[in-house]
Amino acid sequence: MAATLETVSSSKHHEGTLTKYKIRSIVLGDLDTQFNLFLPANAAQGKVPVLVYLAGLTCTEDNGAQKGGFMRDAATEGIAILFPDTSPRGAGIEDETAAWDFGVGKSGAGFYLNATRSKWSKHYNMLDHVTKELPAVIEAAGIPIDFSRQSIFGHSMGGHGALTIYLNSLILGAKQYRSCSAFSPICEPSAVPWGQKAFRGYLAGGVEEGKANYDASVLVGKVKGAINILIDYGTADTFLYQLHPEVFLKAARDAGHDEVQVRVRCHEGYDHSYYFISSFASDHIHFHANFLKA
Amino acid sequence: MAATLETVSSSKHHEGTLTKYKIRSIVLGDLDTQFNLFLPANAAQGKVPVLVYLAGLTCTEDNGAQKGGFMRDAATEGIAILFPDTSPRGAGIEDETAAWDFGVGKSGAGFYLNATRSKWSKHYNMLDHVTKELPAVIEAAGIPIDFSRQSIFGHSMGGHGALTIYLNSLILGAKQYRSCSAFSPICEPSAVPWGQKAFRGYLAGGVEEGKANYDASVLVGKVKGAINILIDYGTADTFLYQLHPEVFLKAARDAGHDEVQVRVRCHEGYDHSYYFISSFASDHIHFHANFLKA
Repeated sequence: MAATLETVSSSKHHEGTLTKYKIRSIVLGDLDTQFNLFLPANAAQGKVPVLVYLAGLTCTEDNGAQKGGFMRDAATEGIAILFPDTSPRGAGIEDETAAWDFGVGKSGAGFYLNATRSKWSKHYNMLDHVTKELPAVIEAAGIPIDFSRQSIFGHSMGGHGALTIYLNSLILGAKQYRSCSAFSPICEPSAVPWGQKAFRGYLAGGVEEGKANYDASVLVGKVKGAINILIDYGTADTFLYQLHPEVFLKAARDAGHDEVQVRVRCHEGYDHSYYFISSFASDHIHFHANFLKA
Repeated sequence: MAATLETVSSSKHHEGTLTKYKIRSIVLGDLDTQFNLFLPANAAQGKVPVLVYLAGLTCTEDNGAQKGGFMRDAATEGIAILFPDTSPRGAGIEDETAAWDFGVGKSGAGFYLNATRSKWSKHYNMLDHVTKELPAVIEAAGIPIDFSRQSIFGHSMGGHGALTIYLNSLILGAKQYRSCSAFSPICEPSAVPWGQKAFRGYLAGGVEEGKANYDASVLVGKVKGAINILIDYGTADTFLYQLHPEVFLKAARDAGHDEVQVRVRCHEGYDHSYYFISSFASDHIHFHANFLKA
């Protein structure tokens, strides 16, 4: 956890600062990785709460920062946003770059899990990178973020990441995150091609191991107590067959989580793009602000 | 002017629609060109005013649409935004792709003029493309935009384009645009490397021809009557030596245009990036709305 932050670039943004950092990641098997961090102006007066944004397939740490439209409201609310990359880069594993929806080719398909198949387990540990390494590195650097006030959101594969990280944290009693939201998330990965491919590839126990540990529609049934989840998706999303939001909604309701705890909104005509995400960005920031500033 | 619109893609965005179109451009010398067009939801009830956004070097029709943060307020105000490309593509002119700040290599350096050197004059006519061809094609297609309520803005090279197109229109008495704004514009191209290179390359009369016809700091002195201009730039802009906003401001004041007519704002710590642009996007949309909805 002793990685040192190197500043790649920094831009003033909505009176705060958007900085791209590089670190040598230990949990990703001694590889360079980058992340973007937005600090609102009020961070100059003391520690601020933070929202972690997990991007989807084909993305990097830049997509959400550049296209998400999140910072205008985050600046107003005084909330930091952390944008990790989506996958390790440069591990050099055989077949790593062959597919667009697995490994690192054009995909960044880290799936926000810790790999258990030996071929991948040295490097593909995005779960520990997001939940442990980045907070530790940022705290050690003295950046004024209060990780006891943390929430998480994401898009598509990153929506899967946000939901599973949030739910697993609650199941473990860790309460690391106060709320979770997602745009067009992969809600039932063990039942769809993207998720099955990832689980078969990264996990020694394949789809069954994935279903037990990293499937939001399974995990939501295991949480005792209240949860705070907002999900948005669009009816014109050509990847809906990979997402299954209705399966997650039913599992949440069956487990006793009502519409205050789990709100799933279906938007007529919207697709899977950042044009969709940025249309509802403001709602997500204010949703999380309710909990981060409580 | 008989080019036909082909829809490349379309996404619902802030209750309106962001559509990418392709046309075979006549004024660009029979080349394919693309543009993005945001139509707000109220366009379903009748023609809406339009704001033309001109992007800078290295950009395409996508940068402003994806990173500018303009549509949230444009949707609220009920204003369309047209995002042309920055240069012809595929003309195949010798040396066209050699430089990053001229021609089309990584640059898209059309400079929003009509070339007069024979080598470039068949294709490099972004001025006519933006001011004549695109409005004609969009009107002919029956898209509900009222081009009698039109304003123009841009960034860097596109800020140069917006200023010169706006001022030249006023000098000609055409009043094609109601207002003009720019982020980090090239304000005195005849005196800086980017502008000199473009003028020497594209214009038979070189820098002198450029200074007479396409230099905002010269043109602003030739306008009779009121003008409506807003310019924003940042003190951390590493390209300030290419921009000269203070020269433009002095020329405007010398010509009798006061701070109501020409407002130039200097923002401490902001740079040349879209993180700067999107921080002040809202101000620009509302500035233009004052005139477009008057």
